[in-house]
Parts: sequence; C-alpha cells; structure tokens
Amino acid sequence: MRTLSSDVHKQIGKEVHVEGWLHKKRLMGGLTFINVRDRGGLVQVVIKDKDEVEKLRGMQIGTVLAVDGTAKEEPRAPGGAELHDVKVTVLVPVTDEPLIEIDKPLSHKPDNLDTLFDHRVIGLRNLQEQTIFKVQAKLLEAAREYFAQNGFTEMNTPKLLAEATEGGAEVFKLDYFGKEATLAQSAQFYKQMMVGVFERVFETNPTYRAEPSATSRHMTEYITIDAEMGFIEFDDLLTFTSGLVNHVVNRVWETYGDDLKKWNVDKPVLTDNFPRLTMKEVHELYAKNNQEDYSAEDDLRPDEERWICDYAKKNLGSEAVFVTEWPVSSMKFYHRKNAENPELADRSDLLFRGVEIATVPMREHRYEVLVQQLKDMAGGDPEHPGFKPYLSAFKYGLPPHGGFGMGLERFTEKLVGLGNVKEATLFPRDINRLSP
Amino acid sequence: MRTLSSDVHKQIGKEVHVEGWLHKKRLMGGLTFINVRDRGGLVQVVIKDKDEVEKLRGMQIGTVLAVDGTAKEEPRAPGGAELHDVKVTVLVPVTDEPLIEIDKPLSHKPDNLDTLFDHRVIGLRNLQEQTIFKVQAKLLEAAREYFAQNGFTEMNTPKLLAEATEGGAEVFKLDYFGKEATLAQSAQFYKQMMVGVFERVFETNPTYRAEPSATSRHMTEYITIDAEMGFIEFDDLLTFTSGLVNHVVNRVWETYGDDLKKWNVDKPVLTDNFPRLTMKEVHELYAKNNQEDYSAEDDLRPDEERWICDYAKKNLGSEAVFVTEWPVSSMKFYHRKNAENPELADRSDLLFRGVEIATVPMREHRYEVLVQQLKDMAGGDPEHPGFKPYLSAFKYGLPPHGGFGMGLERFTEKLVGLGNVKEATLFPRDINRLSP
Repeated sequence: MRTLSSDVHKQIGKEVHVEGWLHKKRLMGGLTFINVRDRGGLVQVVIKDKDEVEKLRGMQIGTVLAVDGTAKEEPRAPGGAELHDVKVTVLVPVTDEPLIEIDKPLSHKPDNLDTLFDHRVIGLRNLQEQTIFKVQAKLLEAAREYFAQNGFTEMNTPKLLAEATEGGAEVFKLDYFGKEATLAQSAQFYKQMMVGVFERVFETNPTYRAEPSATSRHMTEYITIDAEMGFIEFDDLLTFTSGLVNHVVNRVWETYGDDLKKWNVDKPVLTDNFPRLTMKEVHELYAKNNQEDYSAEDDLRPDEERWICDYAKKNLGSEAVFVTEWPVSSMKFYHRKNAENPELADRSDLLFRGVEIATVPMREHRYEVLVQQLKDMAGGDPEHPGFKPYLSAFKYGLPPHGGFGMGLERFTEKLVGLGNVKEATLFPRDINRLSP
Repeated sequence: MRTLSSDVHKQIGKEVHVEGWLHKKRLMGGLTFINVRDRGGLVQVVIKDKDEVEKLRGMQIGTVLAVDGTAKEEPRAPGGAELHDVKVTVLVPVTDEPLIEIDKPLSHKPDNLDTLFDHRVIGLRNLQEQTIFKVQAKLLEAAREYFAQNGFTEMNTPKLLAEATEGGAEVFKLDYFGKEATLAQSAQFYKQMMVGVFERVFETNPTYRAEPSATSRHMTEYITIDAEMGFIEFDDLLTFTSGLVNHVVNRVWETYGDDLKKWNVDKPVLTDNFPRLTMKEVHELYAKNNQEDYSAEDDLRPDEERWICDYAKKNLGSEAVFVTEWPVSSMKFYHRKNAENPELADRSDLLFRGVEIATVPMREHRYEVLVQQLKDMAGGDPEHPGFKPYLSAFKYGLPPHGGFGMGLERFTEKLVGLGNVKEATLFPRDINRLSP
C-alpha cells in the first residue's frame, strides 16, 4: 500500500512504502539523503546501508523509485517527517542527467524563456513551476464553483467556424474538406445566443488569435473564461465580476497561500466591489501625475494601466479596478451605447496588477438597434449566414445582458507575480513557437 | 427584487416579481394562462384583467416579460405555484412567430436532425433540449469532482501543433503565419508528458478529427475527457474508470433524476467495478448467439458492441462493460504489450449502452522499448522534433501509467437515451455542417 509523501508525517513509527521520482541526492556526514517527489510533494529519505546507497550509483534525477522505510519525525524535512532504515527499489533507471535543473528554486528570467520552454517537459517537474499550474487549476475550479453558486450553466461551443464574422482580431484559416474554415477568436456570438437558452452561461474556452507579434502579453492560443448573463444591468455585471475575482483569490490562497508566501507572492488587496474609474478620469489622473497626457486617445496605454493599478492599490484599497465609460469609437457593433450619453459605450475593462485581465461590457439586446449597428459600424449584412443565426436570438427575444471574457493565463500570471503570460502557460504558442 | 420561477412556491401569499420569456399562451374559460420561462424553469401566470391581456396581443413566444403578481399554491402548475392578479410589462416584444416550436415535448427524430440544427439557436430554448445540456454540464462537474477527490491536477494543453506525429486519424491543417500547422487530434502525448509532472492529470479537451463521413457516431469537433495516471497498474485503471462513471451517473441522477424520469430515461444499472470481457470472449459469445462470427477480426463490430452491452446488462448486471485483451495488430506504438502474452495489448474499451465511450489502455513507459515500438510500428524517427520532447519525458523517468479518453458527447447521448451524438452537441460540426 503506497503512502504519499504528504501523508508520511501521519505514519510516524510505522513502515511505509513510497513511490516517486528521485528529485535530489546529496551526501552529508557519511549518510546519503535523497528527496523523493510524488504528487503530494517531497519526502526526505536517509540512507545508511551501503548496499542501498549502491543501488543509486549513477542514477540521475528523475529515476523512478520505490522506498520502504520507517517514518520518523523530523521538523527540518519537507512535510515534517523522513524515512529511515530504508530499502530502495529502482523501478525506472535514469542514467542521463537532465538538461535543465529542476531541484533548484525557480529562476526563469525574461532572458532565458526560450530555454525554459525548449525544456518545458522536464522543467515543469520543478516544484515552483508546479505551483503556478496548481494555482491555475484552482483558479478554474473556484471560478466554476462561483458560476454554479450563481445559477450559470457550463457550455461547450464550437471553435470551427465557416468564417470570421465577429471582426476585430486576426484569425487562423484551415482547410475544411477543401473549403476554408476559421478558428474561433472568441465565443462571443455563441454565449449571447445561449443567454436565450440558459440565461446565464459560462465556458472555459480555447481562443485563437493569429497575433503576428511575440510580446509578453500575447499568445496565439489561450484560455478565456467566458461568461454571459441576462436580465442584468451594468452595475450587476461589475458586482458579479468583482465577486468572482474575490472568490477565486480566496480559494487560491486558502489552498496555496503557504506555497505562495515562500515565493514572496502577496495575496492581492481587493475591495468587495472593485473601484470604478472612467477612462477620462484615468487619463486625467495619469496626466496630472506623469509627464505624458493621453487624454486624446480612445484606449489606455500599457503605462497607464500599470500606473492606475498602483494608484488604485494606494488610494482606493484595491489591486483590481474597473475602467468604465469607453468612447464609442472603440466599441464593437454588439456593444451597447450608453443610454444617457451615446458618445460612450457601456463597457469596462478590468485591470489587475497592471494589466487588463477582462473586458466586461453590456451588449445591445434590441434586434433593430443591433442590426443598425452591425450595418453602420461593421458594414455587415444581417442576411449573411455568419450573422443570421446570431441575430435570430435577438429577433426571438433576448433580455438586457452582458458578460466578460477573462484571460486565464494573464490572471494566473498576475496572481503568482510573473512577468510574461507565457510563463503561466504549460506549452505556450506564439508566432515563433509551436513546440513542444 | 426578482424571484426565479423555481422559487415562487416559497413565496405563497406574497407579491413577487418575475422576469423571463413568454413560453406558452393559451385561453381557457375566459382566462389567459401564460408560462414564463427563466433559468429556474417555468411559472404559470393567470391573467384576468383585460388591459393586461391586451398587452400581450400579437406578442409571440420569446417575448421578454416582467410580471408582478401574487403567488398562489396550485399543485397542477409547474413548480406547484402560479401568479394571480398580475401586472405584465413587455420588456422586449417579439412579433414574429419562431420557425421551430419550443413549447412542445421534444421530437427530434433522425429524419429531421438538419431542421433541428438549422434552428438550433431557438430550438435549444425547449426545456427538454435544455435538460440534455444541463446533464452534460453536470457530467463534467461530477467528473472534475471525482478527479479532484483522487488527486488529479487539471491541465490545459495546446491544440495548435507543428504537425501530426501521433498518427491514426485524419487531421486538419491550418495556415500558421505562412507555415503549415495542424489541429490536435488528441492530448495523448501531452497527458503522458504531464504524468512526469503531476502524476495524475486530466483535461476536458476539444478534439479535432477531419472525419470525412457523416455518421451518427462521429463529428469533426468534440470534447474528450482526457485522464492519465502514473504509478498504477491495469487493474487500478479499470477500477478508477468504473468509479468515475458511477460517480457521474449518481450525481446526474441526484440532480436531474426527476426530469429524466419524465422523459422515460432509466438510471443505468452499473456494478461498482465494471465486468471485464476479453475481445475473444466477446467474439465467441456473439458468434454463439448470432448468425455471424467475427472471431477473425481484431476490432469489434458496432453490432457486437450493441449486443454485448445487452448481454452484460442481462447477465452481468451492468450496462457498462470493459472489453480487454486487444490484439497487438490494433495497438498504437505507445500502448503497452501484455507482459505474459506479447500478442496482446494492455488495452480496454469501455462500452456503455451499445457504444464505445472510452479507450482505456496502459502505455509503454520504458524509454528503450517505446523508441523501438515507435520505429517498428509507426516508422517514426526518435530525433524528429514531433517525437523528441515526448520521448524526453520517458528518458528522464516516467512510471508505469495509463489513462483514458472519454467522449463527452457520446457519454451524454447514451446517458439521456439519444440516437445520434450530434443531438448531445450544442452546435455540431461534421463534413456537411459548420453552422450555426
């Protein structure tokens, strides 16, 4: 019967059997100490017997082992226990030294990311790397939990589309039995259509953008947490989104707070309902406190995003902030214009620790107005098969609705304090990278 | 303050405000009865006042309404309550009659599937259609819960690959910045590599197959529940898979058992650990009880799959059954040969209600053996960049491992008793269909 490394401390004085990978080996005062890694973490093993030590001669990190021994309390060992009087069995010998060190603290600086990704398969065995992706998995689990608590239904919508009708970003084209098809750049149309079915829907959604540049913020493939809810107004939407982020952060820190602390990652300071600043206010605050004035622009500069997040942390008690009241010049045809000021769109961006992690807009739900916006803003034909099914959802009744698309990797990146979104991606994809 | 239809019965005697879609309208004994649909289901509204009735003149199914009224007990109404003395507000008028009826029991026969899918956006508003996809969402939630209880880590692996190296099915090719790339036909290589990281991993995984035929069992895009676990043997794997299916079925029936009963869907009869029959036994049993003998074949015929499931239900007390001991002639290079009989592979297929819903094999985990199988069975070059990172996971230590790929839509289809996998897909894709 196998005992996980994380459970050895519950078996003090008893014989236990662990299985895992040789993760570290060192000689100290005539004794051989090894760390064995399994899905519970690490357990330290003390080997005295010469025959047992001999079995590990030439065995490199990664060697798969079984160890039988007696669990002893040892506060200085990982998990507070270690194994003594052991019998070692080599299950799978590894005789080549790995090309990347995995038993050291993480040190992926921006200048060695290519090395990191080239050796990703082995590099991910590093425990700090693992924490990033355990946090990401917990983030997803917590988000789904929050959706379930709030009456959302999970959906799976197609990524293979006849053509790109949504507009905006670059799309990938593929050969579909001799015809051309495209990869979905978002679930936008589908999530709105599905409001007519389930009222509240979400999807954790692979997203494809033929982004021709390799930056620290963009990839060609990533996961969007897509949500859409009907019978709500803008204020409900921002309140819901604040609640979701708070729930996720709390769940992540409940589970991995200790690990993140070791790594000098602070729990984000957040208000229950995130502060809201209009774009105009952001431009003005930035201009007043910096050398540059971007008030004439209809978007935020990355510099402004970073600065306003610092500002919000210091002055508004929150590392997350909504930027509202976007000019109509930057809106998509399916966004809703503000009822009182038609120069503004009912859109907000959620900024967190210096970057936009979600766009959070209301949609135009009135069929006639939407058709007009489609024609005026996107030059679209409502009878086109790429638009007609989408528009039919409105023709046959959609309530006021809004939602968000939240970038999983960006959110993870900022939660755990990384510098590049690719570091929060198991196997990142960009213009230069399609492997491993 | 809005009350959901499903909560009206908790407010008997009180004034409530509901919002939703007009789902049905009929006149009876001088009264107008309407059903309002929201995410909680339906609530019946009794309208006596002529001015209120007048507001609904010309309003079609789908009209978005707010209704204020008094909740009264009414055992014959959906949810056991209805609204009286109401004030109706039309929020979004719908004046066109929908092209598909959504207030009737479901009747998607194989001969009208194209109509069903052409009008999918509105057709999904049918409550029985909704049940299919609520069951599917619950299935996913329950599977993830079971994975979490058993120490699995969720992962997200790329679907954009430099090329198809896994072999087997047809792949889609896309234009990747002037180069050719392919869409992943499975997460096979990634989930095995990730065993070296987290030991136990899962992914709910969009899967792409350039399947040139339109059958009732195949689509070009679907979701696979992919799982892989290390430090296990074949028996553990089959036991785990049996446990997962049982957990999912129990959770689905706890939540939607009453809905499924109305729809004449029986809860599957399952043993805790599903019965195991070798392929030879299946061929023999089939031959003994039917006109045909397929013993010479190295795969199962669809007829055999159906028949053996009936047999297992009647004779072995389980509607799920594992077929084991597959001939090596049908194995992939990464499958493991049986240690005692190298003519057999350590593979099983999980059959459920007549179809294969999962392939459940052990993998070859020894680097040298795997490299040899790659060369011999697939003609692959271990130095090829499509194989090298995959093989490095083995070179630097992988324990014995196995896993499964379970088709979400097929499992849903059989759980709720449908006849075509596309009926269990929101927006199905096949050689003929890329929209809506």
